[in-house]
Amino acid sequence: MFRVDLNSDVGESFGNYRYGNDEENTKYLTSVNVACGLHAGDPMVMNYTVELANQKGLAIGAHPGLPDLQGFGRRKMDLSPEEARDLVLYQIGALSAFAKLQKGKLTHVTLHGALSGMGKHNEPLARKIVEGIKAYDSDLIFTGVPGLASYEVAKAVGLRVAALIPIDLDFQKDGTSIIERKKKSRDPKEVLRKALKLVTKGKLETVDGVDKELKVDILLVHGDGPNAVDILKELRSGLINAGVKIEPFPNFI
Amino acid sequence: MFRVDLNSDVGESFGNYRYGNDEENTKYLTSVNVACGLHAGDPMVMNYTVELANQKGLAIGAHPGLPDLQGFGRRKMDLSPEEARDLVLYQIGALSAFAKLQKGKLTHVTLHGALSGMGKHNEPLARKIVEGIKAYDSDLIFTGVPGLASYEVAKAVGLRVAALIPIDLDFQKDGTSIIERKKKSRDPKEVLRKALKLVTKGKLETVDGVDKELKVDILLVHGDGPNAVDILKELRSGLINAGVKIEPFPNFI
Amino acid sequence: MFRVDLNSDVGESFGNYRYGNDEENTKYLTSVNVACGLHAGDPMVMNYTVELANQKGLAIGAHPGLPDLQGFGRRKMDLSPEEARDLVLYQIGALSAFAKLQKGKLTHVTLHGALSGMGKHNEPLARKIVEGIKAYDSDLIFTGVPGLASYEVAKAVGLRVAALIPIDLDFQKDGTSIIERKKKSRDPKEVLRKALKLVTKGKLETVDGVDKELKVDILLVHGDGPNAVDILKELRSGLINAGVKIEPFPNFI
Amino acid sequence: MFRVDLNSDVGESFGNYRYGNDEENTKYLTSVNVACGLHAGDPMVMNYTVELANQKGLAIGAHPGLPDLQGFGRRKMDLSPEEARDLVLYQIGALSAFAKLQKGKLTHVTLHGALSGMGKHNEPLARKIVEGIKAYDSDLIFTGVPGLASYEVAKAVGLRVAALIPIDLDFQKDGTSIIERKKKSRDPKEVLRKALKLVTKGKLETVDGVDKELKVDILLVHGDGPNAVDILKELRSGLINAGVKIEPFPNFI
Repeated sequence: MFRVDLNSDVGESFGNYRYGNDEENTKYLTSVNVACGLHAGDPMVMNYTVELANQKGLAIGAHPGLPDLQGFGRRKMDLSPEEARDLVLYQIGALSAFAKLQKGKLTHVTLHGALSGMGKHNEPLARKIVEGIKAYDSDLIFTGVPGLASYEVAKAVGLRVAALIPIDLDFQKDGTSIIERKKKSRDPKEVLRKALKLVTKGKLETVDGVDKELKVDILLVHGDGPNAVDILKELRSGLINAGVKIEPFPNFI
Repeated sequence: MFRVDLNSDVGESFGNYRYGNDEENTKYLTSVNVACGLHAGDPMVMNYTVELANQKGLAIGAHPGLPDLQGFGRRKMDLSPEEARDLVLYQIGALSAFAKLQKGKLTHVTLHGALSGMGKHNEPLARKIVEGIKAYDSDLIFTGVPGLASYEVAKAVGLRVAALIPIDLDFQKDGTSIIERKKKSRDPKEVLRKALKLVTKGKLETVDGVDKELKVDILLVHGDGPNAVDILKELRSGLINAGVKIEPFPNFI
Repeated sequence: MFRVDLNSDVGESFGNYRYGNDEENTKYLTSVNVACGLHAGDPMVMNYTVELANQKGLAIGAHPGLPDLQGFGRRKMDLSPEEARDLVLYQIGALSAFAKLQKGKLTHVTLHGALSGMGKHNEPLARKIVEGIKAYDSDLIFTGVPGLASYEVAKAVGLRVAALIPIDLDFQKDGTSIIERKKKSRDPKEVLRKALKLVTKGKLETVDGVDKELKVDILLVHGDGPNAVDILKELRSGLINAGVKIEPFPNFI
Repeated sequence: MFRVDLNSDVGESFGNYRYGNDEENTKYLTSVNVACGLHAGDPMVMNYTVELANQKGLAIGAHPGLPDLQGFGRRKMDLSPEEARDLVLYQIGALSAFAKLQKGKLTHVTLHGALSGMGKHNEPLARKIVEGIKAYDSDLIFTGVPGLASYEVAKAVGLRVAALIPIDLDFQKDGTSIIERKKKSRDPKEVLRKALKLVTKGKLETVDGVDKELKVDILLVHGDGPNAVDILKELRSGLINAGVKIEPFPNFI
């Protein structure tokens, strides 16, 4: 039997600014990555979001990003490996305060946006980050794309890893996704088709025309996409109809 | 025998900006309050500071402040009690990540600047903050001035408390200190005289000409004062010469 | 014949965060107050907004606020008069760069949120701000509520003034409006009724049950109100039907 | 007769954080580049700095940088050309408010740190920036290193340009300087030797062992260098002794 987790980035509102539709999206998810106040989110939003996710029994992870609210963490910055590690730990710690307040616990870490992108090819930076996470809490699961630096280094240093694919993005054949500063609308049926192929056949379609072999644990849908709820509904019902079990990934990895 | 803790605010540098002289000051201290990145400090400074304090065996506390780097957390802001609580928990969590990285643990929370000042008379705000701290980690000790709202509420909700007096400031007879946006130089011998009177006789001198009865646990010296090191040296040797034992306050409260 | 200006706060988006509906709202306005990057807005939003307003022939003013993006400039902060003045000039200057780029010019200054509220009763702070504005550019018009400190001081130091009433808020009998952290929906017909009474009879209704005598120049509708466009449409057609001429206030004050 | 300008980055303090020694350094300078609040500086510091420079008769320029206070604008960020242009105009406008307040005027623009570095090789970004500056105020002089994109594009679009060399840095043979996150101490006599060779012979020494032919207008010394004052004193007296006239560059370019 195939099992997969439905995941989204949440808690991306800031002050008076609303972003995404967490109340609706979380109905279809089994895990979430919560923004930690540097590229999105603020302490009140974080507290509210952790409570929302906790009440629905979702696996809750930290979603650390670059210190760039204006660029939503999607503008690459030159950071030293130590800077990147300390920024990540700061954010995981901050979020864990709210998890602890709710008598819960963080299960995983998912790097956000350009920080995630930087970790994919910059091995020394990826290494400092994952070593820091392991020293902080060796129970945390690191999510990422198999084959890329951050995922492979996390595995190599002995962190538990889970393979996460942002199924509403396009991919290159090396496994890197093509990040959008503003999310585009996607056809839900087309996303479902690619998801089923990935979950049941282990094949990730790429814009280069070739499939990449991959065992996926987590399907991510960006919550700020204009039709995120439609995609999530289609994915959830389509996957269940195809016999795929949808549950929080810490249960099965 | 009298016992007292020597304490200072540390980790107040930010990026390329140096502030205070933590390397030198920490030689004379038994506990520290570490800035958490909103009014001062940044992730790299926090990590470095926690490591420095840990190596010297100091009790390490969080020093949460207002989100106002430009005003150094010394400009009062109108916050709701919930906003204040979430800001405080965010910062405690962020700092605890670095304590955990160093295999250490935070012992206490000391509110910074205007946030501390706001908590002294705004009982609902003080209550939300200390309830939040207790729900997060009931082992944390709350430091403050006996008689003021935040200290008394912390005690009332069942947090452990420690009486902290910023001995290099002037006091009003209600126990509130007179906060300076920029620290003035103070005569070390005069500070020592006031400290000895407070530690050994339980009397806090005020600018109103009357003494306030008080049992002190912690003497704080502001690390950004122009002659902080001189004051700390004088206090340390003067107190020891008078037979006072200087040690981390979690040992004796 | 009665004349009045229809005005709104615009340019309050930030990075990926959308706020208000400037493209639609500006169809009904004759002047705008543009956020300047501290409580809302960012350089790209400012440039876009100034271009939008310029193309529609609106009077363009600066809308300086407190340096508090998280609180949207609606949390009071303790600032010295000099700090307030310099923050205001910084923002006016920044916005004027984009006006100059579009071969336009700023016509006015409207203080935002808590900064506006602070200026209403804190006379020394209001004085430093308006003296700064006058020294910077004595052609700028200061908008505010007659009777309150900032407006009266502006007039006294010789700045041109225009009476601005946020017609979608409630008022106290001293002329201060009751600021909402999040805007509520308002009945457009009720807002129109109050506007007509104010424009044609010079009477401002207050929650204290008495009317305040007032000659209004500018009716402001908050662009982030949930039904701002409906209110603007109703106001515009209702005022025109009642024979009121709607035009940019610099034409007639 | 040879003429040259002595220049420094100033106004880099922020809130309670002091940086550099502007009061002392400005005694030896003929022009300054003032930080504009994004990578360093704040409105009060900017106002103070412009007043200080104005009183001493220095040419005052804007020193716009990346929105990264923690990294002091020295961490490269991926910006679109439009983002870079709007960030630059925002900062020039903000600073010009304080120049106008002092009845002065900005003479030039000098890009800071990583933004300067990005402009050196990224031609489309450099073009948007200099076109924006020209549209904003075609009298502004753009300073930079001859041969690099931003300088050459500025010249090509018809902005006045001045050749600025940070004489306390090392250079590569393509004319790019090697930026330091923290400034190192430099031997004043060695800096003077290189300066005299550059000013009187038109030869810039590089770490690649070859000299680059260059006509210099402005010698910049970083004000945050540990011995900046010593270098400035040595340069000033050494250049004068060699018969070089030191004066504000707008006088002679």
